[in-house]
Amino acid sequence: MSLVVQKFGGTSVASTKHIQKVAEKIIQARQRGQNVVAVVSAMGDNTDRLDELAKEVNFNKVGAKREIDVLLSTGEQVTIAVLSMMLMKLGCPARSFTGGQAGIFTDKSHTRSRIREIKPDRLLESLELGEVPVVAGFQGIDCHGDITTFGRGGSDTTAVALAAVLEADECQIFTDVEGVYTTDPRVVDQARLMDRVTFEEMLELASLGSKVLHARAVEFASKYQVPLRVLSTFVQGEGTLITKEDKLNMEQPIISGIAFTKDEAKLTVLGVEDVPGIAWKILGPISDANIGIDMIVQNVAADNTTDFTFTVIRDDYHEAMDLLNQVAMDIGARQVNGDDKIAKLSIVGVGMRSHAGVASKMFQVLADRSINIQMISTSEIKVSVVIAEEYIELAARALHSVFNLEEKSIKS
Amino acid sequence: MSLVVQKFGGTSVASTKHIQKVAEKIIQARQRGQNVVAVVSAMGDNTDRLDELAKEVNFNKVGAKREIDVLLSTGEQVTIAVLSMMLMKLGCPARSFTGGQAGIFTDKSHTRSRIREIKPDRLLESLELGEVPVVAGFQGIDCHGDITTFGRGGSDTTAVALAAVLEADECQIFTDVEGVYTTDPRVVDQARLMDRVTFEEMLELASLGSKVLHARAVEFASKYQVPLRVLSTFVQGEGTLITKEDKLNMEQPIISGIAFTKDEAKLTVLGVEDVPGIAWKILGPISDANIGIDMIVQNVAADNTTDFTFTVIRDDYHEAMDLLNQVAMDIGARQVNGDDKIAKLSIVGVGMRSHAGVASKMFQVLADRSINIQMISTSEIKVSVVIAEEYIELAARALHSVFNLEEKSIKS
Repeated sequence: MSLVVQKFGGTSVASTKHIQKVAEKIIQARQRGQNVVAVVSAMGDNTDRLDELAKEVNFNKVGAKREIDVLLSTGEQVTIAVLSMMLMKLGCPARSFTGGQAGIFTDKSHTRSRIREIKPDRLLESLELGEVPVVAGFQGIDCHGDITTFGRGGSDTTAVALAAVLEADECQIFTDVEGVYTTDPRVVDQARLMDRVTFEEMLELASLGSKVLHARAVEFASKYQVPLRVLSTFVQGEGTLITKEDKLNMEQPIISGIAFTKDEAKLTVLGVEDVPGIAWKILGPISDANIGIDMIVQNVAADNTTDFTFTVIRDDYHEAMDLLNQVAMDIGARQVNGDDKIAKLSIVGVGMRSHAGVASKMFQVLADRSINIQMISTSEIKVSVVIAEEYIELAARALHSVFNLEEKSIKS
Repeated sequence: MSLVVQKFGGTSVASTKHIQKVAEKIIQARQRGQNVVAVVSAMGDNTDRLDELAKEVNFNKVGAKREIDVLLSTGEQVTIAVLSMMLMKLGCPARSFTGGQAGIFTDKSHTRSRIREIKPDRLLESLELGEVPVVAGFQGIDCHGDITTFGRGGSDTTAVALAAVLEADECQIFTDVEGVYTTDPRVVDQARLMDRVTFEEMLELASLGSKVLHARAVEFASKYQVPLRVLSTFVQGEGTLITKEDKLNMEQPIISGIAFTKDEAKLTVLGVEDVPGIAWKILGPISDANIGIDMIVQNVAADNTTDFTFTVIRDDYHEAMDLLNQVAMDIGARQVNGDDKIAKLSIVGVGMRSHAGVASKMFQVLADRSINIQMISTSEIKVSVVIAEEYIELAARALHSVFNLEEKSIKS
C-alpha cells in the first residue's frame, strides 16, 4: 500500500469549515488506496493572536526564545486536535501527534531549530492501526523534552522529513495556489502551470520570490530524494511535481521559469581602493546590523580603484545607506549611490547546462526593448539581472514569450 | 528558605496587563524571601475560543476526548509562556513547564484524569537555579506521553498536588475574591472575611455553592495536610487560611459560615409502598439520565406507605419531573409534586461537634420569622434546610446575626 505525506498550510486550515475540506481531501486519498500522514500548520488567525501576545510582552532575550517556542507551538497543537476530531467525525480513524509525540528531535536552537533525528515508532503504530496520524508541523523537542520550533517554512520541513524517514511515495504540499508556474500569472497572462520541475530549478525559483515552497524544505527533499508535489487544497488538479533530474529525458527545455522580485534595493560604493579585505570592510557593518545581502558585484576600474555594488531587502535600504555612508568615509571612497526603484529578474533552467548562449539571448531581448541592465549575476542554472522596476512586467512578458514558456515542454 | 506554590486562575491571567500584575505578585513574594512555584490557568478568552472550536466540530465520541485534551491543554501552555516572559522582562528568572514537563503523570481518563505520580526533578532543578518554575495547571500526561486534563477545578488540584510533593509551606490560590466569607457578602452586609477555616468546613462550604475553591482541591489539601490560602490577585490582604483543625484551640466558634444556593429544585413522590428497593426504583431512572441528585429525604407514613423527596439542579427540573411521572405510574405511587422555587441553606461549623442544640437554634430562628422548613438534612458539621426561595436572604441575615458571625472569632 502506498504512503503519502500531505501537508496543509495556514490558509488551508483557516477555519473549521476549511478543516472539513482538508479532512475530505485526506479521506479521498485513502479511498484511492493510499495511507496518509497529515502535517498541519497553525490556523491563520491563531498565529496572529499568538504573535500579538508575544508582541504585548515585547521581550526578546535569549531565555525568552524558549518561551516563544512554548507559545507558538500551541498553534499547530490546536489544529491537530481539530483535524483529528473532524476526521473521526467523518468516519476516518485519526490520532494527533505534537512534534515531540511524533518523535521529532531537534537541536536546542529555539525559534530556528534543526531536526537531529526522527523516531517514528508511534506514527508507524498509528498507521498500523489504520489511522491517519495528524502531526503538528513546525515543531519538535530537544534532548531535555523542551519544545522547539523551526522558523519560517517549518511545516514544509516537517512534512518532507517525515516523508523521508517513513519512505513515503510522495510528499504533497497543499496550498492556496495550483502549483508552480513558469512565472507570476498575475503579471504574465501566458504563465503556465508546470507539470514537473527539478529540485535545483525549484530552489532557484523559491529563493527568487516564488513563495510557494520554502527553500529549506526543497533542499531537504532534494537531499533525501523525496518526490515533492505542490497542489491546491481548494481546486482539483495534479499540481507540480518537484523531483530529481530525469537522466533519460535529454530534451530538457532551455529554461523552465522566470522569477522576479521588486523587494530589493541597490547600493553602490564608487572609487574604492582595490585592496584585499575591502569587501569585508564594506559589507561587515551591513551584516553586523543584521541586514541580509543578496547580489554582490564588483568591477575593477582602470585607475586601480573598484566599484562595489550590492542589493538588500528594500525595507533595510535607508539603514544600509546610513551605514554605508559612514563606511565610505572610513575607507576613503569617492561616492555612495543608491536606488530603491529596482527589480531583480532571473531565468532558471537546468537546460542551460547544455545550451550555450542563453544569457546573451536574454540580454538581447532586454536590449531590443531598450531595458538597461544594471547588474548581472549567474549560476550554473540561472541568470539574474537587476533592471529599473518600471520595466519588470515588460521584461518578464518578453522573455516568457521568447523562451516559449507558454508551450507545454517536451519533458512533461 | 520557605517555598510557596501560587496558583492564578483564568480571571487573574485574562490579559497581558493582568499577567503583569501576577508577575509583580510573584516578585513581591521573592522579595519577602520566599521561593515561588507558579501554577496558571488558561487566559479567559482563550478558553472560550477553544471551547468554540470544539463546539464547531461538535463531536464527542470516546476517541475525541483524547483530542479535546490536546486542544484544551494549549490554553494553559499559552499562559505559562507569556507569564515566564513577563517575569524575565521584569528581571526575575523563570521557566515554563507543561504538565508533562513538570512530571505530572496521570491515569488515561481523558478530560477527567487523576494524578498518579509526580516526578518533580525538573521543577527542583529550576528552583535550584533560582528560577520561578511556571507550571501549566489542569494537565498532565499518561504513561504513553499523551496529554490529559483534570476537568473542573483542575488547576487548583495541580497547585495543591505540587505543594504536597514539593513540601511547600503553603499553597496560595489567587482569585478574584479576597478570601472565604462567613456568607455571601452580596446578600448579607455583615458577612465577614474569615482568617481561618478548617478543611472540613471548607469542603462543606465549597460543595454548597461557595465557588471559591473546587472541592477536589480541598480534599487533596486535606489528605496531604497542605495549608491552603485563598486570596485576591488584585487587592492586598492575607485572605483565608484553610488548614487542619487546631487541637490546641478549644474555643471554636459554634458555626463558621452560612452557605446557600438557589439553583436546585425539589421533587416528591407521595404514597409509595414502603418496601426494600423502592429508593432505587425511584432514583435509578433519574441517575441514568445523568441528572445529579443532591438531598434525599424519606419519611414513613402511618399507612405503611412512604413519601420520598429529593432535589436536583434546577436546570434538570422538567426532565426529572417527566421521568418521575413515568416512574410513579410504574410503582403505583399516589401522586408526584414538585417545586422549583426553593433554596437550600446550610450552617457549617466544626464547633457543632461539641455544642448541642445548634440545629434547634437554627429551626427556632426560622420559626420566629415564619419561615417554613420543607426538608432537613444533617451531617456532623452541617445542618441544611430547604425553604421557599423568597425567604432565603431573610434567613441568611437572621442566622448570620444570631450566630454572631460578624464578630471576629476567638480562634483567629
